[in-house]
Amino acid sequence: MNGHYEQCFPGVWRITLGTPDQLTPHFFFGDRESSRLSEKSEQPLPWPKEKIRWENRKNGFLVTLPLSAGERLYGLGLQFGSYLQNGRRKTLRANADAPKDTGDSHAPVPFYVSTAGYGVLADTAKNVTFDCGAVKKADTVSRLPSAGKGAAATTEELYQEELRSQEVNIFVPGAQGLTLYLFADETMRGVVERYNLFSGGGAMPPAWGLGALYRCYTHASQDQAESLIRELAEENIPVSMIGLEPGWHSHAYSCSFRWSPERYPNPDRLIQLAEEKGMNLNLWEQCYVHPTSDIYEQMQAHAGDFEVWNGLVPDYGDPEARKIYSEMQGRLIDQGVRGFKLDECDGSDYTGGWFYPEFSQFPSGLTGEEMKNMFGALGQRAVNQAFADRGLRTFSEVRANWSYAAPMGFVLYSDLYDHRQFIRAVSNASFCGLLWSPEVRQCGSAAELIRRMQSAALSPMMVINSWMIPSPPWKQYDIEKNLAGELLPDSQLEDQCRELIRLRNRFFPYLYAAFAKYAREGTPPFRAMALDYPDDPAFAEADDCYFMGDSLLVAPILNEGTKREVPLPPGVWYDFWTEQPIQGGRTITAETHQIPLYVRQGTALALGGGEPVHGGDVIPLEIRLYGTRSGDVLLIEDDRETLNYQQGEQRWTTLSLRDGKALPQTLEGYSVDSVRVIL
Amino acid sequence: MNGHYEQCFPGVWRITLGTPDQLTPHFFFGDRESSRLSEKSEQPLPWPKEKIRWENRKNGFLVTLPLSAGERLYGLGLQFGSYLQNGRRKTLRANADAPKDTGDSHAPVPFYVSTAGYGVLADTAKNVTFDCGAVKKADTVSRLPSAGKGAAATTEELYQEELRSQEVNIFVPGAQGLTLYLFADETMRGVVERYNLFSGGGAMPPAWGLGALYRCYTHASQDQAESLIRELAEENIPVSMIGLEPGWHSHAYSCSFRWSPERYPNPDRLIQLAEEKGMNLNLWEQCYVHPTSDIYEQMQAHAGDFEVWNGLVPDYGDPEARKIYSEMQGRLIDQGVRGFKLDECDGSDYTGGWFYPEFSQFPSGLTGEEMKNMFGALGQRAVNQAFADRGLRTFSEVRANWSYAAPMGFVLYSDLYDHRQFIRAVSNASFCGLLWSPEVRQCGSAAELIRRMQSAALSPMMVINSWMIPSPPWKQYDIEKNLAGELLPDSQLEDQCRELIRLRNRFFPYLYAAFAKYAREGTPPFRAMALDYPDDPAFAEADDCYFMGDSLLVAPILNEGTKREVPLPPGVWYDFWTEQPIQGGRTITAETHQIPLYVRQGTALALGGGEPVHGGDVIPLEIRLYGTRSGDVLLIEDDRETLNYQQGEQRWTTLSLRDGKALPQTLEGYSVDSVRVIL
Repeated sequence: MNGHYEQCFPGVWRITLGTPDQLTPHFFFGDRESSRLSEKSEQPLPWPKEKIRWENRKNGFLVTLPLSAGERLYGLGLQFGSYLQNGRRKTLRANADAPKDTGDSHAPVPFYVSTAGYGVLADTAKNVTFDCGAVKKADTVSRLPSAGKGAAATTEELYQEELRSQEVNIFVPGAQGLTLYLFADETMRGVVERYNLFSGGGAMPPAWGLGALYRCYTHASQDQAESLIRELAEENIPVSMIGLEPGWHSHAYSCSFRWSPERYPNPDRLIQLAEEKGMNLNLWEQCYVHPTSDIYEQMQAHAGDFEVWNGLVPDYGDPEARKIYSEMQGRLIDQGVRGFKLDECDGSDYTGGWFYPEFSQFPSGLTGEEMKNMFGALGQRAVNQAFADRGLRTFSEVRANWSYAAPMGFVLYSDLYDHRQFIRAVSNASFCGLLWSPEVRQCGSAAELIRRMQSAALSPMMVINSWMIPSPPWKQYDIEKNLAGELLPDSQLEDQCRELIRLRNRFFPYLYAAFAKYAREGTPPFRAMALDYPDDPAFAEADDCYFMGDSLLVAPILNEGTKREVPLPPGVWYDFWTEQPIQGGRTITAETHQIPLYVRQGTALALGGGEPVHGGDVIPLEIRLYGTRSGDVLLIEDDRETLNYQQGEQRWTTLSLRDGKALPQTLEGYSVDSVRVIL
Repeated sequence: MNGHYEQCFPGVWRITLGTPDQLTPHFFFGDRESSRLSEKSEQPLPWPKEKIRWENRKNGFLVTLPLSAGERLYGLGLQFGSYLQNGRRKTLRANADAPKDTGDSHAPVPFYVSTAGYGVLADTAKNVTFDCGAVKKADTVSRLPSAGKGAAATTEELYQEELRSQEVNIFVPGAQGLTLYLFADETMRGVVERYNLFSGGGAMPPAWGLGALYRCYTHASQDQAESLIRELAEENIPVSMIGLEPGWHSHAYSCSFRWSPERYPNPDRLIQLAEEKGMNLNLWEQCYVHPTSDIYEQMQAHAGDFEVWNGLVPDYGDPEARKIYSEMQGRLIDQGVRGFKLDECDGSDYTGGWFYPEFSQFPSGLTGEEMKNMFGALGQRAVNQAFADRGLRTFSEVRANWSYAAPMGFVLYSDLYDHRQFIRAVSNASFCGLLWSPEVRQCGSAAELIRRMQSAALSPMMVINSWMIPSPPWKQYDIEKNLAGELLPDSQLEDQCRELIRLRNRFFPYLYAAFAKYAREGTPPFRAMALDYPDDPAFAEADDCYFMGDSLLVAPILNEGTKREVPLPPGVWYDFWTEQPIQGGRTITAETHQIPLYVRQGTALALGGGEPVHGGDVIPLEIRLYGTRSGDVLLIEDDRETLNYQQGEQRWTTLSLRDGKALPQTLEGYSVDSVRVIL
């Protein structure tokens, strides 16, 4: 009983066990074209076929996989509470209000990777449990050396005594089979790359998506939103995206998807103003369809049998529902909208009425449980299709995800707000094809605002979400005072925040190249340290810092204080701010008001200007050579906003620096302003 | 399709829908003899038979029950987070670490009662969901009046807009049928009484069980435990039970169930000393069987396939496992042990290893999911059987329960510690045949210690759980200082705590009668206000005070302050402390250092002495007549410790007071010391 192994691509196998469900994530999102994956190296199976066991249990399907001593496991999606998964049991379930580290999350992903160079994707949308060596079979434990030991009288002592079994158990409740996808590579990072390519490759944002997104106050009228746009422009706050919250709808929650004639009488004027000021419009929405929506009648035959906030729940498992939704979105895109924020698609235990129950039924055959877990993933596809139909990229927001997420130009966010967890999530997202935004909202102090702005600036999407405050947080970070119009007297905080948005914009050439690698090679643009140093125990639990691209290590300082420990990888690193070299391979103490940021020796780093980047802009490059007089910079040249890059209309240009000077090179959209050697 | 209705007793119907599971709570705990129930009044069905709908869904079985406007629902077990269940969705699941108000609990019970005079028991051990009018069917909501309203931009506004559907949905995942038991009565309290009688009637504690239980420091050796027993006796702290924590075992966790030869070389001496000082011994244990236990080998064939803390998980669904366990317990009882504390039988999301997974399998056919939910209930039965075999009652502790709990002499406790939730739990327990102990542990201040001692003194079981501190909390309530031996200089706190334990003991005659009614009539001895005043909206959400017996209203003050609001029922009430009459039917403000306690006008309250009560003691009664010169006192006369009362060896004697004097009456175990009229 070895299961049915089938090689899909080099180093990628489909393992069919029992009788798997039909309506799985792979059914909806899988089987993407992947010529890149076809070119990858062949790999041996990471374990002998007979090492997998499985059985039908009365309440579901159980698969047992091997786990070697010393192997470390990561992944399972956007886990806020933990990083290393060994010894943990997680039941994955979409839940906006995940209260503990039990597997509930905005974006759980039934995929884990091992430092031994493989990854396992369980192709299910059910509330699947992954037991990563936590449970112990009854027939083995009594033979363990500790069996006869004395009393352990407190729980602390128990933790000392803990034993880990050497197996992973995957349990799918109510299933009679399971398809696994197994990925192998020489490195753990290579495993993730293969998984991302298998998903369809990473998302390629439009240029404006790599700037900053400012979300307006939820009660803002059109006049107020326009005033804010003008104010940001006048004060040289260089944001590239402006977001409207629920109030733009004539009805929300649930959504009419129609402009409110009272609050937003002239949306075209608003969109034009934003465009003039270099900002793309992003609209908040939920997927729940209010009776006053134009698509309500059409959707009635393609919806679940329970409502949310008096609105229909579209059956996104049904292509017709996705089409109706996508066409409606298309009309907004045609009006000039360039991004959406898909809110509350992530299940909630908050109150009974905030989500459809798991016992909902959908015409496509999906259960409420399956739909809950895939709702964000399916909703994104419906929205994304509207952009794709117009040949446009987007860089939108979404509050839920599941497997096969990489190709979607959507960044995750949440209503949670623990800064430490937000940073951990940047790392955890990178194991599973996710992008995560540690957005800035209210703050308890000016120091916290700056620390959060720093983290946001060096994350997949920089979001300042002022939905609760009419004036920007740098004018008043305290909610109550902001609401009362009591603004701070001086502009020092605004200056600091402006500089952080400019910093974000300056990294555009570097980030755009990192995302191009994500799209083409599957390499996560923001990465957990364990992905690049899987074998080094120093980084096994380093979940408070991460790589941005290949050359930069970001180590945010949380809300208070100016100091932190940073586990610096081997080699020489340069402090981005002081430009001093630091010997790595050890933990250092950073002390700074800036965000600790380190550049790998040998890097040729190309920084752009502080303004947002648009399609035809020529970016003035400041190139810094760290600890070297020569190096190469990858520059991505394309139209920066359409999907034409997918048809090959994208050039990867290597700009070479020799002896502190740029070699002659024809560049499109970039110009070399300066080269500086830092030794 | 009306379902199969079958009347089991007057006002009790079995409704069989679809193909129910076999191994349900009723299979294990149901079909108790109930002559009392046979004598109850006939009742009409609370709804027309066709009002129930049900269907097989892909992922489970869904039953839909009617819910009238204005009907209020309570129950679902030991819900810490809420009281009134309307508009809530709860998925019941045994979980020691219930993080939110989603249904997880130590003792969820798939039973709810309605102010309309009926109760519904879902006979399942699965993770059943009760949606109490929270969800709305998709085909109805678009017709509601609010459908066309304008935007609600914030969540606050949404709460204003909320709508409740008028149905209850019960969903059993993975099931293909469900048996419901429907209970009807003129009153909601009567419904609960029928449910408790259907369960086998309420628990009758031995006399010593109604005193106070002091649990020793977990690291206490026999010498230290004996010193503590002597110290308590010398200082006249009148506790009737002394508990040992894990350290008495030669191995825990998991358990050997054998005395540690190092720490407890002479248990008989310890037990004898305790007996001499009037204390019964209670031993901590888990149900997990360590390899060094005498019953390990026997249990191997009767255990689940995953271990917990390196110990076997007995398959309590298998009578043989219960027998092995029960016989082992019997040997401890024969040694003199009179109670147990069944710890960690309540499932945990704490870490992977703290509980067996839901995908466990048991030889009896129970799944891990079913076993998790029934584990505490089944474990209690195994322990209880050992007492029953010896004709003894017990009053023990347990950390988990499920349906049909009433007959078990076990009180629930937990590792949670929110005082407000602890008080709510006293009320919620009463809807579902549960008893709950708001035990006292560490405290942040002397005031908090007193407030918690007060609540404990007037609860189903008074427990001072000093497992974390070597000296009693009244000598030092701060853990660190207690551990360091830094005791408080004066004995004022000790005096106050002693008085509270004495207060507890003084209520023995009253509480013993309340428990006798629980055993015979099913009337909860501690009761939610809504049970006695279901139709009065003033008490619909009054979950911070409760009735003790029929005549006393307990309204604890939480940790800080000396004031609180008390919703006083109609009629005249007497302040227990000042003895002043207060007009009820309104909310009053209590301000006192005592625990606010009110006596119903017309009550003849018999108080005993401050010492613990044992079998042959003659209790000197102080009888107080509140607002009357005449009245009756129910006194229960039996041996106070054996099960002979079940064979009729219990006399319910009415002592009549007329014109401020007791009429002549032969009493066994009581003597009238004084009668006092309070006008």
